[in-house]
Amino acid sequence: MSSNQRFFLLITLLPFTILSFFSSTSLAVDFCVADLNGYQTPSGYVCKNPANVTADDFVFSGLITGANTSNINKAAATPATVQQFPGLNGLNLAAARADFAPGGAIPLHTHPYSSEMIYVVEGSVTAGFVSGITSNKVYVKKLKKGEIMVFPQGLVHFQANTGSENAVVFATFGNADPGVQMINAALFGNDFSSFLVEKTTNIDQAEVRKLKKLLGGSG
Amino acid sequence: MSSNQRFFLLITLLPFTILSFFSSTSLAVDFCVADLNGYQTPSGYVCKNPANVTADDFVFSGLITGANTSNINKAAATPATVQQFPGLNGLNLAAARADFAPGGAIPLHTHPYSSEMIYVVEGSVTAGFVSGITSNKVYVKKLKKGEIMVFPQGLVHFQANTGSENAVVFATFGNADPGVQMINAALFGNDFSSFLVEKTTNIDQAEVRKLKKLLGGSG
Amino acid sequence: MSSNQRFFLLITLLPFTILSFFSSTSLAVDFCVADLNGYQTPSGYVCKNPANVTADDFVFSGLITGANTSNINKAAATPATVQQFPGLNGLNLAAARADFAPGGAIPLHTHPYSSEMIYVVEGSVTAGFVSGITSNKVYVKKLKKGEIMVFPQGLVHFQANTGSENAVVFATFGNADPGVQMINAALFGNDFSSFLVEKTTNIDQAEVRKLKKLLGGSG
Amino acid sequence: MSSNQRFFLLITLLPFTILSFFSSTSLAVDFCVADLNGYQTPSGYVCKNPANVTADDFVFSGLITGANTSNINKAAATPATVQQFPGLNGLNLAAARADFAPGGAIPLHTHPYSSEMIYVVEGSVTAGFVSGITSNKVYVKKLKKGEIMVFPQGLVHFQANTGSENAVVFATFGNADPGVQMINAALFGNDFSSFLVEKTTNIDQAEVRKLKKLLGGSG
Amino acid sequence: MSSNQRFFLLITLLPFTILSFFSSTSLAVDFCVADLNGYQTPSGYVCKNPANVTADDFVFSGLITGANTSNINKAAATPATVQQFPGLNGLNLAAARADFAPGGAIPLHTHPYSSEMIYVVEGSVTAGFVSGITSNKVYVKKLKKGEIMVFPQGLVHFQANTGSENAVVFATFGNADPGVQMINAALFGNDFSSFLVEKTTNIDQAEVRKLKKLLGGSG
Amino acid sequence: MSSNQRFFLLITLLPFTILSFFSSTSLAVDFCVADLNGYQTPSGYVCKNPANVTADDFVFSGLITGANTSNINKAAATPATVQQFPGLNGLNLAAARADFAPGGAIPLHTHPYSSEMIYVVEGSVTAGFVSGITSNKVYVKKLKKGEIMVFPQGLVHFQANTGSENAVVFATFGNADPGVQMINAALFGNDFSSFLVEKTTNIDQAEVRKLKKLLGGSG
Repeated sequence: MSSNQRFFLLITLLPFTILSFFSSTSLAVDFCVADLNGYQTPSGYVCKNPANVTADDFVFSGLITGANTSNINKAAATPATVQQFPGLNGLNLAAARADFAPGGAIPLHTHPYSSEMIYVVEGSVTAGFVSGITSNKVYVKKLKKGEIMVFPQGLVHFQANTGSENAVVFATFGNADPGVQMINAALFGNDFSSFLVEKTTNIDQAEVRKLKKLLGGSG
Repeated sequence: MSSNQRFFLLITLLPFTILSFFSSTSLAVDFCVADLNGYQTPSGYVCKNPANVTADDFVFSGLITGANTSNINKAAATPATVQQFPGLNGLNLAAARADFAPGGAIPLHTHPYSSEMIYVVEGSVTAGFVSGITSNKVYVKKLKKGEIMVFPQGLVHFQANTGSENAVVFATFGNADPGVQMINAALFGNDFSSFLVEKTTNIDQAEVRKLKKLLGGSG
Repeated sequence: MSSNQRFFLLITLLPFTILSFFSSTSLAVDFCVADLNGYQTPSGYVCKNPANVTADDFVFSGLITGANTSNINKAAATPATVQQFPGLNGLNLAAARADFAPGGAIPLHTHPYSSEMIYVVEGSVTAGFVSGITSNKVYVKKLKKGEIMVFPQGLVHFQANTGSENAVVFATFGNADPGVQMINAALFGNDFSSFLVEKTTNIDQAEVRKLKKLLGGSG
Repeated sequence: MSSNQRFFLLITLLPFTILSFFSSTSLAVDFCVADLNGYQTPSGYVCKNPANVTADDFVFSGLITGANTSNINKAAATPATVQQFPGLNGLNLAAARADFAPGGAIPLHTHPYSSEMIYVVEGSVTAGFVSGITSNKVYVKKLKKGEIMVFPQGLVHFQANTGSENAVVFATFGNADPGVQMINAALFGNDFSSFLVEKTTNIDQAEVRKLKKLLGGSG
Repeated sequence: MSSNQRFFLLITLLPFTILSFFSSTSLAVDFCVADLNGYQTPSGYVCKNPANVTADDFVFSGLITGANTSNINKAAATPATVQQFPGLNGLNLAAARADFAPGGAIPLHTHPYSSEMIYVVEGSVTAGFVSGITSNKVYVKKLKKGEIMVFPQGLVHFQANTGSENAVVFATFGNADPGVQMINAALFGNDFSSFLVEKTTNIDQAEVRKLKKLLGGSG
Repeated sequence: MSSNQRFFLLITLLPFTILSFFSSTSLAVDFCVADLNGYQTPSGYVCKNPANVTADDFVFSGLITGANTSNINKAAATPATVQQFPGLNGLNLAAARADFAPGGAIPLHTHPYSSEMIYVVEGSVTAGFVSGITSNKVYVKKLKKGEIMVFPQGLVHFQANTGSENAVVFATFGNADPGVQMINAALFGNDFSSFLVEKTTNIDQAEVRKLKKLLGGSG
């Protein structure tokens, strides 16, 4: 058989071979882009029909610009979790962008379902976390542009811009839906009884009531 | 700016800040209470609409009293797994209560998807498990009120009231749906062919047939 | 062959069969009791030699009695995690006992690596948790003896004795090492800079310094 | 009580005991056979109604005979993943059968979500994988009938029949939906730009275009 | 630049590029072959030094021939789990071979840490499992050569040769260390008290004692 | 009791309370910083003694500047996985920085143990991945500064600088040790037999040999 014939044979047979290699009309799950209008389960959202998935489903543009920092925190966070970026569904990754005016800070918070890693994109930030009750130590560090820091899962942590310029941080998570709980919002930004807040934090009830007024809470 | 002005500013801006901190109409999954009438998946039930979730979804009252022990086992178990307590969905925890009259026993069983930990609430129980074929050892211990014991995942185990008073045990699992297989029910409480039961357990077929009559099996 | 002969054969052969069924000197891991003096890994401690494991390794007696509640919280917790109860290593379960004098409370805290389920053993407790920032709702309920409640992973929660008698709670976790972070200790019980605490929680710095004195913190 | 009476009692009470042991109308998830027409989630398909599940759902006959090897690879694979064998849903196992004419080969490929283990059923095969960039080593071995080999998750691997007889391999995976990516199909069997293929693999663009013709690609 | 020059450049630079692509002396874990003399952890054995790993570590020849079936079960199993085949460590796969003379059976057993899938290599077998207590159904099927069947995790199952020829089964697991517990061995092949065996299985104590003699147990 | 007395009591008792809250000398694992000279296990490295852990263990400075792009790819990657950044051990996160001169490209590669998410820090990049054999589609997109894209686990993907300026990408992974396999290195940068490479990829053996010379391979 000449090499020309051999190539002809290849042309004829191979496309079929590959298409039929794993035969059947099966649809393997290479990915599971979230149908955000569909059911949620403990493992994430039901999958969008793969036939309708395009490259756009795997790209998110919402972190190009940051949110407005003209607020009391002088800082703002923009999330890119599965709720905003459905391509993340099932892939154990999510992101957020934090913007800081000078003196701005992202309040103390935790992520119930993931550790967090931050990358300083602009400016510098002082960041830290507190370990659990056994040692109860504070791990704080001033980070410059290009440095990364990791906060172990579920521990309270913060970032503050202690420099004189704006700062931008890109944060990532090992879960498409890491969750977030702000300590000040949890204590003072809802109807958590002031009596119980004092009882379970030792913060004076007068201070609790003052902060509830500030942060929109009641009770 | 006076401190009064500062507070005014705080009052004005902060509630908005916190509400908008993680902006968008996103709905993060802090929990996924089971919709027991909804679909089941390998990771659990689809989630109930969070807007309809209340504190009651996270509380279960069905273990306040135990089941009737006036049966041949002189013991009874009351489960609190995701099927009874939908707030457990996705949270890797479940419970059960076991009640024992004197001489009562929970028959030998396994949980395919979880280890079990028991806490003796009242009375005392003799509990134990058997390890796998390599060592095939029996680990038995008489437990008094307040003691806890753990049975590794998937191994046969039992609890028996060898004391003279009633006993109550609170059992917990590291899975919202641990499953349970009773050895006597699996062998003698269904239509498992007596010939095959003998062949695969060495128990004499006459005894198998006798136990099938006792336990409601056939075949 | 007579049935006597058959039995003789069984006696002769079966023990060998079972011992040799999964031949080799292999040692399957039915469990991995922690060697607390050995290495730790992300999945837990290295295993104690199974030959030295006894039933006692799977039993823990440290929760029979509660800790002294004569302290400012009028409450105390006694843990039974892998560090106290090495039989839990690798089994995704742990426990704790909480004791409350009237008016006592376990301060607001989180478990980074597990949900928690409580069972009211004596008395009654008011318990609750706060959901994440999206809804920031408080789920509180007064529980009576025998009721159970679950707190989803990583969210702040508390238990308080709002009754007039002592109360006892048995708590369980879906992880042998759930971790624990007390909010008051993390903010006020270490050298976390008072300036940063105010900046990241909005709590007035004077109140922060007062609480640091109370809770043993500095800075 | 006579033993006759005792047995009567057993007959009366035990069936009820076992049926009611874990009372309620709960439906524990012993398995979750896929409803292939139902929703997909990151953890697999929604479950078929257990009442309609039979032994047939746990058996697959599609690997009794192999696929036709009269193609350019002189080899063919027949999958038995959750898409073909819905009983695997949620059970972390899948299989495939590969048939090889003499000189046949399963092209280089990876499984994104699982390691693979092969068992040589007939003939002999030369199989191997390449480790990651740090060592970039080739682990190749000629296997005879009855031997097994494992290919670690996500690494490129192949099997080739370097003998003179037909060969059959039974392959298994630790995931019901391991996925499969053929390197030749990914590079040359679609519309991946020939310019980018050269740029990202160093393969000469002329060769890329030639292979695209062979394998049904374009661009 | 001529294409010759371009190739020269490639020759000079690329090897360095690839070697240094992920620079540093780092050693990524593509695999973790077990050091069977080393520590065990909940996630498996510590890894053998990758520098000493060869293709042989990923190949196992112990299933080429089956074990002797001249025993009371007329069947025998040969395992290929991490304890025999250290290349499986951390890879979520294991295997076993079962050989059956006519009339032989692998006794009823469970695997605490994995589902099982069997592939009939020779002859035919009748195989089945029993579901958990809620439905307590028996799923049995006669399998011919080339068929596969899956047994969900942790449920009792068996295989029996109901044909007239020898049979061979290749079994696989989704865990390198699935564990195995034989029901007859657990009940009758150790020092489990006959009193407790009767109490927790309803099997008559006389039958228990008889079987203990047969299976090497005492007590 | 006056409020002064009350505060005195608080000062006296609370520090003790918190220190002793979870009593014992137990050391909960809030984190497990890798001892890179210690054992490796399937779940990661053994933990460094927590007493020696400082904030520096959670910070990595190696991505501040990129690697030299004066190579044939005109691109270079700098990893920050557990091997370089031991604080990541057990935390399911890792990072890398990729630098591109105009026309530069990171060759086609996969990560066996994680999905990847990229964030464009400077310039613009064209990035894409190919799905598995069932659809075998190419998902490509030109990304501008600030955009993010996700590549599902284990699928081949690339990034190329199709712009006229330098580009910088920050990549993250949901695993501390994601692994990396470059397709060109795996095929042409080692001693993989040219005969087998052709047989398993359809690339002409002459081209294979040419590329082996270019990329440092042999055979």
